[in-house]
Amino acid sequence: MTTLIRGCRPWGGTICDVLVRDGRIAERGSGLAAPDGATVIDGAGQMLLPGLVDAHTHLDKTLLGTPWHPHSAGERLIDLITNERRVLSELQLDPALQSRRMVHHMLERGTTRIRSHVDIGTDIALRHFHGVAETRETCADLAAIQIVAFPQTGMMILPGVADLMEQAVKEGAEVIGGLDPVGIDRDPRGQLDAVFAIAGRHGCEIDIHLHDLGEMGAITIEMMAERTAALGLKGKATVSHGFCLGDVDEKRLEGLIGLLLENDIAIATCGAGHYPIPPILKLRAAGVRMSAGSDGVRDAWGPLNNGDMLERAYQLAWHGDTRDDPGIETMLELATQGGAQAMGATDYGLDVGNRADLVLVAGETAAEAVCYHPPREMVMTGGRIVVENGVSLLEPI
Amino acid sequence: MTTLIRGCRPWGGTICDVLVRDGRIAERGSGLAAPDGATVIDGAGQMLLPGLVDAHTHLDKTLLGTPWHPHSAGERLIDLITNERRVLSELQLDPALQSRRMVHHMLERGTTRIRSHVDIGTDIALRHFHGVAETRETCADLAAIQIVAFPQTGMMILPGVADLMEQAVKEGAEVIGGLDPVGIDRDPRGQLDAVFAIAGRHGCEIDIHLHDLGEMGAITIEMMAERTAALGLKGKATVSHGFCLGDVDEKRLEGLIGLLLENDIAIATCGAGHYPIPPILKLRAAGVRMSAGSDGVRDAWGPLNNGDMLERAYQLAWHGDTRDDPGIETMLELATQGGAQAMGATDYGLDVGNRADLVLVAGETAAEAVCYHPPREMVMTGGRIVVENGVSLLEPI
Repeated sequence: MTTLIRGCRPWGGTICDVLVRDGRIAERGSGLAAPDGATVIDGAGQMLLPGLVDAHTHLDKTLLGTPWHPHSAGERLIDLITNERRVLSELQLDPALQSRRMVHHMLERGTTRIRSHVDIGTDIALRHFHGVAETRETCADLAAIQIVAFPQTGMMILPGVADLMEQAVKEGAEVIGGLDPVGIDRDPRGQLDAVFAIAGRHGCEIDIHLHDLGEMGAITIEMMAERTAALGLKGKATVSHGFCLGDVDEKRLEGLIGLLLENDIAIATCGAGHYPIPPILKLRAAGVRMSAGSDGVRDAWGPLNNGDMLERAYQLAWHGDTRDDPGIETMLELATQGGAQAMGATDYGLDVGNRADLVLVAGETAAEAVCYHPPREMVMTGGRIVVENGVSLLEPI
Repeated sequence: MTTLIRGCRPWGGTICDVLVRDGRIAERGSGLAAPDGATVIDGAGQMLLPGLVDAHTHLDKTLLGTPWHPHSAGERLIDLITNERRVLSELQLDPALQSRRMVHHMLERGTTRIRSHVDIGTDIALRHFHGVAETRETCADLAAIQIVAFPQTGMMILPGVADLMEQAVKEGAEVIGGLDPVGIDRDPRGQLDAVFAIAGRHGCEIDIHLHDLGEMGAITIEMMAERTAALGLKGKATVSHGFCLGDVDEKRLEGLIGLLLENDIAIATCGAGHYPIPPILKLRAAGVRMSAGSDGVRDAWGPLNNGDMLERAYQLAWHGDTRDDPGIETMLELATQGGAQAMGATDYGLDVGNRADLVLVAGETAAEAVCYHPPREMVMTGGRIVVENGVSLLEPI
């Protein structure tokens, strides 16, 4: 299938035409002729973005596609965890179906690559993992999905979870996860030793949820850095959320940034209006790799995340009162290239030869597209058009 | 013109039909027959909301309709004020045209009532005021607009501004404004005496921008309360922004809430991701009147505000991590009834007899509509349909 997108602005630059052939970007230029039989799309001077990348979400637990479920949890992290288990067990949802629904939901908003944390626990064993792994296959042409084996209910406090997580890695989870080694497990040495040992044995990536604030979070990053260095895992680890980086004082932050750089530890942020979040512009200026994610979308943790990564870039700008164009553009970079790099993509972006994951959206500049995050006019994944004239072509699930 | 909206959910309730005749809500019920010649709209089970209300914006200064203007100001309040004057004088925009553009922009997003602060200064005199007053007339059928005479560049520090502001009130500004009496004028006694005296003389409302944090803001609220009581202006004053209410300690806050209630001083909030904002749920529970606004939309202050009040309700929920349905619904109340009340509307809401300012939007519940804030499917103002099937029927300006 060949498609010519006429008159669009790749990343807000000069207007040009983009030819897509065999699922790849074949040519960029002005006045390109449409090959015989090619579909022609009028870019109408709109922004052409590479497919958005959601580098931190939870595909297995969304309530999308079910009737609206009023949020019912208390406010503490542990209330949210317990409540979710109750809701999911009451609703008896199928993780394969739910994750497929969410992939479609995200695709309709322009997201073509997704790193999903997937719950693993002694109660559910590998059921969620198998469901999302199934979706990773069934949706392989639509979106690139990475799975993080994630101990939502704790790791060291529940004997057996570490083994289940390692089993998931053996069965194809690309990343080993973790969760507040101090705050949840109360055993940072135990959890981090176990997680890094699994990564060492299987050569997988590491991505640890770190909500712990202040020194609790800071010592966790120090311990991650020590283990990264000791096991030769430089460039393999990611800290998700990392609220502590927005919470410690300037001097402590400088030290932590040094450790992140030395060990090439990346940061994934989801924003979060009421928490301190990592100081994005400062970390990026220092050279720290960063990506962005939606976190859980309409799930038992609450309904505030809606799975739109262009809007999430806006939320990141809003959080730090970033008003200048280069700063706003940085937020979009987190939601595109930053995420693709975090996922190890090698064929990503708007250059010729890359996979044709493309989004058309109203706007003259990256900053404008972020600030208005209007509905996606066109979404293409691997050369296949899934949203046309703002209307989804995907079958409802 | 008669319109029957079939099968919608007023404020997320049970599905019913709504009949609109002569610009008013004429009937609500199930299985209503369409009168001869009536336009019939398929509500498709969507939410029906009353027109959104933007209780704090700046119609006169938007750059909407002009090419994207990269943000160029420094970070301090004074940098932003100075930069704006430079940009507006360079671009030579017409406040009447710009405010009309913004009214259309807002209407397309469902906003039918607007309180706009309008710059008054010794450099521009009443030029912006006259422009927006013109738009208030030309758009009278489309949106109810209130004007606040606003001393953007300072009041007591620029001799002549107070007189110009009073002149604006004489010429029909419904509200007398103010700006950080401590932080900008360094003369809280002078500014507040002048503002309240004008209100006392003309019986207009008062609405003061208060960005000043901590005690600087708190003493300003105390001084507003004193003058409200002394001049018998209970129920006439609004504090806009009021960041200090999110910044002082619990005990100080309780005292300030007491003053707000005693003098029926209202609060208008625009959110603001990086500032403390008034604790909405706490203030509302105490009985403080509250409304919400977009603040300036795509202007020289920055591009982050986009003029969508349904999304702004979401931003307010996001800011305080409000995840429960009643809490999220409260944010929507600020952007609807709360704003209408702030503007003194007497024919507002979804009940029979009120002006037919109506918005159809996908969603089963108020919380769902807020969290997704999808494009408006239908917008009606005074019975006139201005957005149909998601497409604006307004002439481009």
